[in-house]
Amino acid sequence: MPLLVMKFGGTSVADLDRIRNAAEKVRAEAERGYDVIVIVSAMAGRTNELVGWVEQTGPFYDAREYDAVVASGENVTAGLMALTLQEMGVPARSWQGWQVPIQTTAQHAAARFIDIPRDNIDQKFAEGMKVAVVAGFQGISPEGRITTLGRGGSDTTAVAFAAAFGAERCDIYTDVDGVYTTDPRISSKARKLDRIAYEEMLELASLGAKVLQTRSVELAMRYKVPLRVLSSFEDVTDASGTLVCDEEDIMESKVVSGVAYSRDEAKITLFTIEDRPGIAAAIFGPLAEAGVNVDMIVQNISEKDYDEAHAGAVTDMTFSCPVNQVERARKAMEDAQARGEIAYDELIVDTDVAKISVVGIGMRSHAGVAARMFQSLSAEGINIKVISTSEIKISVLIDRKYMELAVQALHDAFELEKAD
Amino acid sequence: MPLLVMKFGGTSVADLDRIRNAAEKVRAEAERGYDVIVIVSAMAGRTNELVGWVEQTGPFYDAREYDAVVASGENVTAGLMALTLQEMGVPARSWQGWQVPIQTTAQHAAARFIDIPRDNIDQKFAEGMKVAVVAGFQGISPEGRITTLGRGGSDTTAVAFAAAFGAERCDIYTDVDGVYTTDPRISSKARKLDRIAYEEMLELASLGAKVLQTRSVELAMRYKVPLRVLSSFEDVTDASGTLVCDEEDIMESKVVSGVAYSRDEAKITLFTIEDRPGIAAAIFGPLAEAGVNVDMIVQNISEKDYDEAHAGAVTDMTFSCPVNQVERARKAMEDAQARGEIAYDELIVDTDVAKISVVGIGMRSHAGVAARMFQSLSAEGINIKVISTSEIKISVLIDRKYMELAVQALHDAFELEKAD
Repeated sequence: MPLLVMKFGGTSVADLDRIRNAAEKVRAEAERGYDVIVIVSAMAGRTNELVGWVEQTGPFYDAREYDAVVASGENVTAGLMALTLQEMGVPARSWQGWQVPIQTTAQHAAARFIDIPRDNIDQKFAEGMKVAVVAGFQGISPEGRITTLGRGGSDTTAVAFAAAFGAERCDIYTDVDGVYTTDPRISSKARKLDRIAYEEMLELASLGAKVLQTRSVELAMRYKVPLRVLSSFEDVTDASGTLVCDEEDIMESKVVSGVAYSRDEAKITLFTIEDRPGIAAAIFGPLAEAGVNVDMIVQNISEKDYDEAHAGAVTDMTFSCPVNQVERARKAMEDAQARGEIAYDELIVDTDVAKISVVGIGMRSHAGVAARMFQSLSAEGINIKVISTSEIKISVLIDRKYMELAVQALHDAFELEKAD
Repeated sequence: MPLLVMKFGGTSVADLDRIRNAAEKVRAEAERGYDVIVIVSAMAGRTNELVGWVEQTGPFYDAREYDAVVASGENVTAGLMALTLQEMGVPARSWQGWQVPIQTTAQHAAARFIDIPRDNIDQKFAEGMKVAVVAGFQGISPEGRITTLGRGGSDTTAVAFAAAFGAERCDIYTDVDGVYTTDPRISSKARKLDRIAYEEMLELASLGAKVLQTRSVELAMRYKVPLRVLSSFEDVTDASGTLVCDEEDIMESKVVSGVAYSRDEAKITLFTIEDRPGIAAAIFGPLAEAGVNVDMIVQNISEKDYDEAHAGAVTDMTFSCPVNQVERARKAMEDAQARGEIAYDELIVDTDVAKISVVGIGMRSHAGVAARMFQSLSAEGINIKVISTSEIKISVLIDRKYMELAVQALHDAFELEKAD
C-alpha cells in the first residue's frame, strides 16, 4: 500500500472546525488508496501558553520538565484529529511519542532523532488502521523521559516519518500555498514556484523564509523525501503547492529561483585592530563561545587610520549577527580586549541593516549572477555594505530603508515573475 | 524514610500562584523528613475544556482517544509542580502514568487499577529525589493505551499510591477544610469533625457529600490508609482537616456523625400492580438493564384500589432514582408493560423530593436513632415519603421544600454542634 505523510501546523488545527477541514484532506488521500501518517502540531497558541507557564515557575527551569509540559499540546491535537477521522468513518488512532516509540537523544528542548521503529504502527496498518495520527515535535530519551525537538519541530517529525516509512511524499500543510520567488507582501510580482531544489529551499529557509524549518529540509534532502508545501485552506489539486525535490527532478531551472530577505541582522565593526596572523581566531573564538551566530565577515584595510606608515599593520573587521545577539557580541569583544587578547579602537554597531539574498542552483553553471545583482542594486543607488557568497546564493547587507526596493529590483532583474 | 502522599485537586493548582502555594506545603513535609509522592489534578477548568473539545468531534467518540486527550491536563500540572519544587530547591520530578507505569484495566474513561509497580519511583528516591509528582486520574491499559479513571479519579490515584508505597498517611488537599457534620451553607451550626470512620465517610460520600470520591474511600478502607482531608488555602497544623480512619482509631464516637442531603432524587410510583411472587424482579430487572440506579424501594398496599376484594392482590411500588434518569426509567417501565411482563394503572413521577440521611457507626450499638429521627421530622410537620436503612445510616425521602429545615432539625436533634 503506498504511504503518504501529511503534516498540519498550528494554524491548520487551531480549532475543531479547522481540524475537521484538515481531516477532510486526510480522508481524501485515504480514499485515493493511501495509508496515511498524519503529523500534528499543537493548536495555535497552545504551545505559547504552556511555555509561558513554564517560564512563570522561574528563570532556570529543568528542560526535562519543560519538555514534559510543552509536549502535551500535540497530544491533544492528535487525539482530536483521530476522533474527527473516526467520526468521518476513517479507521484512525492517535500515537504519542512514547507509544511509537520515537527515540531521540536526551538533549531536552533540542533533541535529535535516533530511531523511529516501524513495528507498532505497521502492525496496526496490517490490522486495518488507515490513518496513524502522530503527535509532532516530541519523542523519548534513552532514559524514558519526554523530549521535544525545539520550536517548529513538527516539520522535522513529518520528514523523519516519511523517511522511516518510505513515504511516497511528505505534504506539509500550512497557512501559505507554497514557496514564492519572494515575499508577496513585498513584491506584488512574486510568483509561486511549482518546484524548488532541496539546496535552494535550504538556503531560503536559513535566509529567513519562514515556510519550512531548516532541519526538516536538510533531512528531506539527505533521505530524498519529496516534500510538498501547500495550503490547508484551499482545495488540493495536483498543481497545488510547491514540490521541494532533487534538482534532477526539475526539468529546467532558472539561474535564480528566489530573493530572500532578513530584517533581523546587525552589522558590527571593530575599527583599527592589529592585522596579524591569528587575529580572526582571537575575535571569532570568543564570539562563538558566547553563542553569537556570526553570519557574514569582511576584513578590510581601515579607512580611518590608513596611512603609509600603518598600511598593512592595522585593519577593520566587520561581521553580521542576529540583532538580538548584539549585546552578547559586544560583551564578548570587550572581555577579549580586557584580557589583552585583541585590541581595537572602537566597536560600532549598525542595527539599521537588512540582508538580501538571491538563491539558485543555476548559479553553479552560470557566471555573471553577482555582476547582475550588484549592477541592479547600483542602478537604484543602493550601497552594498557586506557581501558573502556560497555556491548557490549571494547575500548582501544594505541599509534597511532600501530593503523593499532591493527585493523588487532584484525580482525584476532576474525576471522571476515569468514562469520557468 | 517515612513516606507521605499529598493530593492537590484542580482548584488547589488552578494557576501558578496556587501551584506555588501547594508546593510550599509539599516542601514543608519534605523538610520534616518525609519522602513525598504528590498526586495532581488538572488545573481547574482544563479538563472541562478538553472534554468539550472531544464532544465537539461527534456524539459517539472512541473512549481510548477521549482518554488520550483528557489525561493531558494532569501531565501539564505534574510538570509545572515539579518545576516549582525544583525552583524552591526541592529535588523533584514529574511522572506520567506510562512512566511509572500505572497499570489499569482497559475500561477506558472508567479504568480500575491493576498494579502500581514501585521500582522506577523507588529507584529515584534512592538516587536522592525527595518528591515524585505523579499525574493523577490516569494509567495505561494492558495494550499500552492511555486510560483514565473517570471524573474525580485523582483521589483514587492518591489512595492507591499510598497503599502501594505503604504511606504513613494520604493527605487530600481541597477547597474545604475538612468533613463537616453537615453542609455549613445549610446549617450554621455545622461543625468540622476531627475524625470520621471509613464506613461513615463512605456513606456520606455516596449520599452526596462531595468532599471525597466514593471509590477512594473504599480503597482507603480496604488497605487501611489513613486519609486526611484538608484545605490547601490554610496553614497546616496537626489539628488541620479531618482524619478518615479505622473506627478503632476513634476514641469515642457519637451515635450520629453527620447529616447528608441530596437534591438530585426523584420518586417514581407504579400504581395498582399485580401483587405476585416475582413482581419485584419483573420491575427492577428492566430498570437495571436500562442503567437506572434505583436507590430506595417501598412496596405497600395500594391506597387507590384498596378494597376487600382486591386486598393482597394489588399493590403500589415506589422507588427513587437520580432525577436525570427518570425518562430512562419511564421508558423501561412502558416497554415492560408493552411486552406484557408487568401491568400497572399509572406511573407517577415526583421530582420535587430530597433525600436526608443520618450516618453514624454508633447506630450499630444504639437503638432508637430512627425513632428520634422520625419524631424530630414529625415535630416540624415534615412528612416522610420513603425510608431506607443500612447498618450505619437512615435515609428518608421528603418534599424538597423542607430539605433545609430537616437538615437543621436533625443536626439539632442529634446535638451535632457539640464536640465529641
